[in-house]
Amino acid sequence: MSDPVVAASSSCVTASSVTERQLADLQEILGDKGLLQGTADLATYETCVRYGAGTAAFVARPQNSAELSRVLAYCVTQGICLIPQSGNSGLVGASTPDGTGTQGVLSLDRLTLRDQNGKIELDEDNRSVTVGAGVRLSDLNSFLAERGYSFPIDLGADPRIGGMIATNTGGARFLRYGDVRQNTLGIKVVLADAQGTELDFMSGLRKDNTGVDWKQIFIGTSGVYGVITEAVLNVERLPKQSAAALLVPRDEEAVLPLLRALEERCGSQLTAFEGMSAEAMACAFDHVPSLRNPFPGGELPGYAILAEVSRSWDKRDAEESLDDLLEAVLAEIWEFDGEPLANAFIGRPEEMWSLRHALSEGVKHAGKLVPFDVSFRRGVLMEFRAAMAQDLPKHFPEVRICDFGHIGDGGLHFNLAIAKDDPRLADESFIPSLRNWVVTRVVEDFNGSFSAEHAIGRSNQGFYDAYTPEKIKNLAAGLKDLTSPGKLGAVKLG
Amino acid sequence: MSDPVVAASSSCVTASSVTERQLADLQEILGDKGLLQGTADLATYETCVRYGAGTAAFVARPQNSAELSRVLAYCVTQGICLIPQSGNSGLVGASTPDGTGTQGVLSLDRLTLRDQNGKIELDEDNRSVTVGAGVRLSDLNSFLAERGYSFPIDLGADPRIGGMIATNTGGARFLRYGDVRQNTLGIKVVLADAQGTELDFMSGLRKDNTGVDWKQIFIGTSGVYGVITEAVLNVERLPKQSAAALLVPRDEEAVLPLLRALEERCGSQLTAFEGMSAEAMACAFDHVPSLRNPFPGGELPGYAILAEVSRSWDKRDAEESLDDLLEAVLAEIWEFDGEPLANAFIGRPEEMWSLRHALSEGVKHAGKLVPFDVSFRRGVLMEFRAAMAQDLPKHFPEVRICDFGHIGDGGLHFNLAIAKDDPRLADESFIPSLRNWVVTRVVEDFNGSFSAEHAIGRSNQGFYDAYTPEKIKNLAAGLKDLTSPGKLGAVKLG
Repeated sequence: MSDPVVAASSSCVTASSVTERQLADLQEILGDKGLLQGTADLATYETCVRYGAGTAAFVARPQNSAELSRVLAYCVTQGICLIPQSGNSGLVGASTPDGTGTQGVLSLDRLTLRDQNGKIELDEDNRSVTVGAGVRLSDLNSFLAERGYSFPIDLGADPRIGGMIATNTGGARFLRYGDVRQNTLGIKVVLADAQGTELDFMSGLRKDNTGVDWKQIFIGTSGVYGVITEAVLNVERLPKQSAAALLVPRDEEAVLPLLRALEERCGSQLTAFEGMSAEAMACAFDHVPSLRNPFPGGELPGYAILAEVSRSWDKRDAEESLDDLLEAVLAEIWEFDGEPLANAFIGRPEEMWSLRHALSEGVKHAGKLVPFDVSFRRGVLMEFRAAMAQDLPKHFPEVRICDFGHIGDGGLHFNLAIAKDDPRLADESFIPSLRNWVVTRVVEDFNGSFSAEHAIGRSNQGFYDAYTPEKIKNLAAGLKDLTSPGKLGAVKLG
Repeated sequence: MSDPVVAASSSCVTASSVTERQLADLQEILGDKGLLQGTADLATYETCVRYGAGTAAFVARPQNSAELSRVLAYCVTQGICLIPQSGNSGLVGASTPDGTGTQGVLSLDRLTLRDQNGKIELDEDNRSVTVGAGVRLSDLNSFLAERGYSFPIDLGADPRIGGMIATNTGGARFLRYGDVRQNTLGIKVVLADAQGTELDFMSGLRKDNTGVDWKQIFIGTSGVYGVITEAVLNVERLPKQSAAALLVPRDEEAVLPLLRALEERCGSQLTAFEGMSAEAMACAFDHVPSLRNPFPGGELPGYAILAEVSRSWDKRDAEESLDDLLEAVLAEIWEFDGEPLANAFIGRPEEMWSLRHALSEGVKHAGKLVPFDVSFRRGVLMEFRAAMAQDLPKHFPEVRICDFGHIGDGGLHFNLAIAKDDPRLADESFIPSLRNWVVTRVVEDFNGSFSAEHAIGRSNQGFYDAYTPEKIKNLAAGLKDLTSPGKLGAVKLG
């Protein structure tokens, strides 16, 4: 196998610089606010959250699908490469231009107006919402919360809807609500062809079997097949009751039996089952001193689980409370043969989620962070962790494992931290070789995925290239020719 | 618009008869049991449930994916057209050969063995099951029920898994569990190319975002892009508690408010919300005299709803029973302004489902049946019904509407019955013109789908041809060339 990290490639190369004439043409399509040029204006569009900066030839900010179609048609005809950019909050480098200064950014940030009447249309009968792709998740959920609903993708970041669909984000309540794919009822998409063809799959039907479900090929494919401009999304009723517990499993082997026992007893009321390593929790407490440590004497267990139950309806008098339910269920599990539960604490859900949500930020301060977003069959995830705890130190001593994960759906944020003064960091090949070693174990030994919920971007393109069968790459290239033959997107799937 | 019913077409035409030499070659690949010839053996494979019979040149019954691959490669090379056939329980004519006698049937009925150890592998930790595409839904669910699980697609028919995926069936509990697409974690598929390429998407991961989710293009596309040979499916825990009520809405406008009120109060415990017209119920009672009529004095209301709540866990002592929950919720709704609820009866779920399940068979005896499987945004479905009740008699007098539907997901079994001695039936254009008129209203006036849950087959090919934009047909044709350029499938999406 060649070195996947170094082998990254993209088809989105523009032969020459964008000319003054071309910029003038784009300005004519987009108007003054719609086209940004000049270093200061471009900066925020050139820098991705975690993966360094590129250089944009321009930023195009169409106001609606029709304008975006004209931009795409023009750029395809002129051979200009466009990088679609949504909230630019992703972690894999799929939304920023490269360093050549020849690529334009196609920003969705003005695609918030659905029509003259407003930016978001709620259809309460259909339990769905219609939005522009540029609407932020937080804005959508504020709008919905006032009306008793939620778009149930629970993320730390605040992306825009178009990017969420193009990366098929998951999040902390996947166990109950599924991913973006399962909550997308429709999209409008513009292709990178000479016409900037608009495809409208916006019927918003929950049930429709009339041939290929075309929207599926634009979900999770990082914008290389087309640019999403509008969407119809499933919404859920807001949770009205919730309870949470921190569970300490006897050992790692007890984690899956605990998940199964809770699923058996709580069913669809179980809305999260999140695993947290002692190392990750320690990072969070170090970084956020105000966080309350819920463990007796402040002593962190080797592993803890945040289990949440919730209901989307108001509690009725005759109904058992969720706290009582959790208490009874945990008391029952406490008596199990083999004692899978070493300890358990029922507490305020907000407090427990504060700990859970502090993990991402906390681990960033543990040293030089090398993050992996991987997934497994649920029963394999803890086996992978155990193997890593044993094998990693042999190959990479003094690398801390600060992981946490969505055990309920098999997703693992496997974070490695290296002391900032570690001399190995001076060696440019050290981190790539560490990344290759881990991903090789994930994919080859544990049949896992090297990208659970962030899709493909520049930072994992090499792994895509290394682990995707040739036949699949050929299909992907064919699909690209079929849909968007123009230069679109930061990655290459074919 | 041309006449969609008459305009049906297929790309799966074999220029000449299958030769003795070709049959001998196929027999060498498949062995004695694997290739059927001769009229008697072929009969059950030539006849589709509702749409007449064709003539098969042969029936190929491979035992495993590898054998199926060799059959496909051979037939592609020889230019022989194959019609994939699963349980042959579909209603749209996608699984039987045409009348030319030049097409072979590729049956999945021996693809039940997953490996030497058994036909079904349950992964309890992953809450998933791995099956051969030839396994029947009833066999899968018997196997799962013994272990406390279920594949939650609730159908009247008993299809095989491969066909369920190729048609993306829905069913009566879609509201809670989704369709087959949402419950398919992986498939193995064989393409109709010169190599009979096998594509393996069987990792069974719940979260995996590494490029195109290729399995999606084989779901619901009637087998034209490839033949599914194995699958990994999500399973759910079996319901342990359930309660049901028959609701009589004040009128048709009260139906959606009732659905919303129940969703608001029962959340994920609401597992069905099925609508039944008086005409459809009358047909069921006529046809099945032993059915108990639950309405006072046996007088059927104009419309009734079967609402079911269920839980996948054993009732605990402190927990309110579902009967009590339903009673309290209905008492609350009873007091609503506008009185949306005219009457309600809580009863034994089995008894209520007996009525619901008797509708399909009942309406078949109401006369010459012209069925439509259509869907709408949930809020539009009852508007469509109201418009039909008003307009249909003007254009087609003395046609009975005997509909029932999955109101919770917008699906409607819109059945029309014509007296068997109606002289109009002698006119060959009568039923096609009736079908065209209804579908035109569904699609053009109510933005609905002409195929909610049965995919595309010969009987609705004409509507596909009429209502699919040229651009989409071009994409579908391109996808066909890309995946399975050989002659496969009874329909033409390109």
